[in-house]
Amino acid sequence: MSNPNLQDILDKSANPLQHLRNVPAGIYVYPVVAPEFSNWRKEVQAWRDSAVLFDQTHHMDNLYIKGPDALKLISDTAINSVENFPVNKAKQYVPVTPYGHVIGDGILFREAEEEFVYVGRSPAANWLMFHAETGGYNVEIVIDRRSPSRPMGKAVEREEWRFQIQGPRAWDVIEKLHGGPLEKLKFFNMSYMNVGDTQVRTLRHGMAGAPGLELWGPYEDYDRIRETILEAGAEFGLEAAGARAYSSNTLESGWIPSPLPGIYTGDKLADYRKWLGADSYEANSAVAGSYVPESVEGYYTTPWELGYGSFIKYDHDFIGRDALEQMDPAAQRKKVTLAWDGDDLATIHASMYQNEELPYKFFDLPNANYGASNFDSIVDEAGNVVGVSMFTGYSWNEKRGLSLAIVNPDVEIGSQLKVVWGEPEATGKLSVMPHRQYEVGVDVSPVPYSEVVRREYTDGGWRKKVAAHS
Amino acid sequence: MSNPNLQDILDKSANPLQHLRNVPAGIYVYPVVAPEFSNWRKEVQAWRDSAVLFDQTHHMDNLYIKGPDALKLISDTAINSVENFPVNKAKQYVPVTPYGHVIGDGILFREAEEEFVYVGRSPAANWLMFHAETGGYNVEIVIDRRSPSRPMGKAVEREEWRFQIQGPRAWDVIEKLHGGPLEKLKFFNMSYMNVGDTQVRTLRHGMAGAPGLELWGPYEDYDRIRETILEAGAEFGLEAAGARAYSSNTLESGWIPSPLPGIYTGDKLADYRKWLGADSYEANSAVAGSYVPESVEGYYTTPWELGYGSFIKYDHDFIGRDALEQMDPAAQRKKVTLAWDGDDLATIHASMYQNEELPYKFFDLPNANYGASNFDSIVDEAGNVVGVSMFTGYSWNEKRGLSLAIVNPDVEIGSQLKVVWGEPEATGKLSVMPHRQYEVGVDVSPVPYSEVVRREYTDGGWRKKVAAHS
Repeated sequence: MSNPNLQDILDKSANPLQHLRNVPAGIYVYPVVAPEFSNWRKEVQAWRDSAVLFDQTHHMDNLYIKGPDALKLISDTAINSVENFPVNKAKQYVPVTPYGHVIGDGILFREAEEEFVYVGRSPAANWLMFHAETGGYNVEIVIDRRSPSRPMGKAVEREEWRFQIQGPRAWDVIEKLHGGPLEKLKFFNMSYMNVGDTQVRTLRHGMAGAPGLELWGPYEDYDRIRETILEAGAEFGLEAAGARAYSSNTLESGWIPSPLPGIYTGDKLADYRKWLGADSYEANSAVAGSYVPESVEGYYTTPWELGYGSFIKYDHDFIGRDALEQMDPAAQRKKVTLAWDGDDLATIHASMYQNEELPYKFFDLPNANYGASNFDSIVDEAGNVVGVSMFTGYSWNEKRGLSLAIVNPDVEIGSQLKVVWGEPEATGKLSVMPHRQYEVGVDVSPVPYSEVVRREYTDGGWRKKVAAHS
Repeated sequence: MSNPNLQDILDKSANPLQHLRNVPAGIYVYPVVAPEFSNWRKEVQAWRDSAVLFDQTHHMDNLYIKGPDALKLISDTAINSVENFPVNKAKQYVPVTPYGHVIGDGILFREAEEEFVYVGRSPAANWLMFHAETGGYNVEIVIDRRSPSRPMGKAVEREEWRFQIQGPRAWDVIEKLHGGPLEKLKFFNMSYMNVGDTQVRTLRHGMAGAPGLELWGPYEDYDRIRETILEAGAEFGLEAAGARAYSSNTLESGWIPSPLPGIYTGDKLADYRKWLGADSYEANSAVAGSYVPESVEGYYTTPWELGYGSFIKYDHDFIGRDALEQMDPAAQRKKVTLAWDGDDLATIHASMYQNEELPYKFFDLPNANYGASNFDSIVDEAGNVVGVSMFTGYSWNEKRGLSLAIVNPDVEIGSQLKVVWGEPEATGKLSVMPHRQYEVGVDVSPVPYSEVVRREYTDGGWRKKVAAHS
């Protein structure tokens, strides 16, 4: 008998939706890296005001793809074109199902003619592995899975360390480390730099217009490289970002890390569900939030909705191409940032200080997500659901609650909507306590975030007003 | 030249007070154990409603004291009597300085006739080591320091694992593990039990009247013992407490973990300050909070203030005895729990959602402390400082902010005071951002905490009221 697989698990559940909403999992964590080094507010402020060291060594799968058919495997599974994909360039790789739904995304580095590395969450890595194994490709695959969520003092080993140096002073840190001027290549171009006596690979990156780099190399150099960077960066105000600060970065920049892979239904994916193990990400990742569609398909997304419409290139054949060609790009939902009302959030916090009623759903700072994928209903004044909010937290730089969302095409920037915070039903998720729901006012804003509406701030003024009137 | 010591560091600073308030340290963490397993609210609820597994393997120093003079070393440095201290008994050991100020405290286990283990923060361990080394005692000392605060994927090794099983269902879990009835010895008596095939040592403990046990054994069995306990406990609702939940436990039970050792001044402690390394706890632990006395001595505490008055036994000679005999027990401050006003805390939270002014000092949940030792001023209506609040956080079980404090002897249970939350000055602490101070209303309550005043809960009702009136 073969090992149990995802399909076995789904067969034992009422349906995929019920299975995913009830996975008995804690919060999806950013593992191994300490929660805070100085404090999370200072670390968040650093990427806006000075410089930050992101430690991306532990939270992603690394998939190494080598061989004569490596590029073909990628091309056959990517909505992206591989036409302009020379050695020393990277791409944000997006695969879709035969039905055109996003599976996941991640960065693909072309490190040599026949050598690629995928870095990202598991779903796109698993999809690549499945096709490499079953599609007759001449490739060699090595998977280095994300680090354990709770190592509890056990040694963690990875293939490579991976850092980013970002922020307005990042390039000062980089050139000091390098020992001289370093060419600012175009975005997502790869090169080399020196860190102490060690030459390391680089990917041109950036945040809010300021140039930065991603760096990587063999894991045995992890500590030495990290210490060298922190020492060099001290004079520029470089802060190491801890696990708490890290995930709030994307609220400002706008990448949605957590689409649900659209693989739980459909005959064309039956073999894949049998290939995915019972221990896979897909089988064990909980879905959280107030939005409960009729079926799991209500959680699927298309490339346009996540902001990847421009990646779709019909210059090659790829899985899902036919389905995408049938879709009307203009009818797709679009990605926005939602800026949450501070008084509403304060009301949610305030509910923790009473026991007359259940509190509202706990809103943790700065990362408020409580599932591997998150879907909260966005409603208009009439109560119609006009979108889903998919990644929620708090930006210390903006001093606002923010979330990344996809909304109906007719929703305009600047409009005011509400997000339903909290779940309508009790589930088996370990990350949730019994709670009440609350409708939080939100201002529809651009991606990346910039402020369009500034709400009035009461700062406890309400209590003085109440006192004056009562 | 000798290695730099605490006195060298103090000599380079303006004064000990300034040094301690400006130690460039992050928050004093509960290391290695994962922040959350299910979620911190569920874990906190477990010790009140079902059962909890506390993992105390990593956050304390373990000091092993062996030899013919072991008991004499303890007796010479403890306010406690050693008259009733047979093998297989434990005591809460409290040493004071020659001036009668508390150095620290911890649990002393008598494991054999001439074998003791001290488990606690560093200050009392260091004091024992200093006297063992310099006092001519025939003892052998082995120190196993607390685990690194930020192991970052490195293996952590300790001498022993240490757990507690607590809560109303704890004894059910214990007897299931043991495989039969187990005698409930008196508090702080030691014995043995079975965990799977392994016999482990036990210390009778308890929480809120429910019997529990502390267990320990060789570190190589850590994982196996932990998994066996969690498996056996599942049917009783046993939750593993993570780092976030753990420290809020003491808010309900009333032990103050964080007195400042009274060792920074006084000629009689000059040799000790030279003995303490520049890398010691005493040299590197930051003091936080709104209370800034004239000198560091304003932070020193006496045994009575911390609730250890009944431990003082003049049946033996010990360091500090003369000083304690000069003090008037009735004039000492006393330990209380302060229950914080929920609306005030909500106002502090609300201030994070604006950028017109600095926010109030961030109040993290459930542990709001931001120094190794914490002292916030408690003021009465006239603005007089009537005590200091020393350990602050949030109890999910009580749904209230709570702190442990010492107040003037005339302060009555049930009276209403204010705690000044936030610091009056900018410091070098890495755990703090620029902020405003806020005076939080508090209700003086007993230790261990029980509710004496229930404040009105507004739950956002304020905004409706404001709207109705404006």
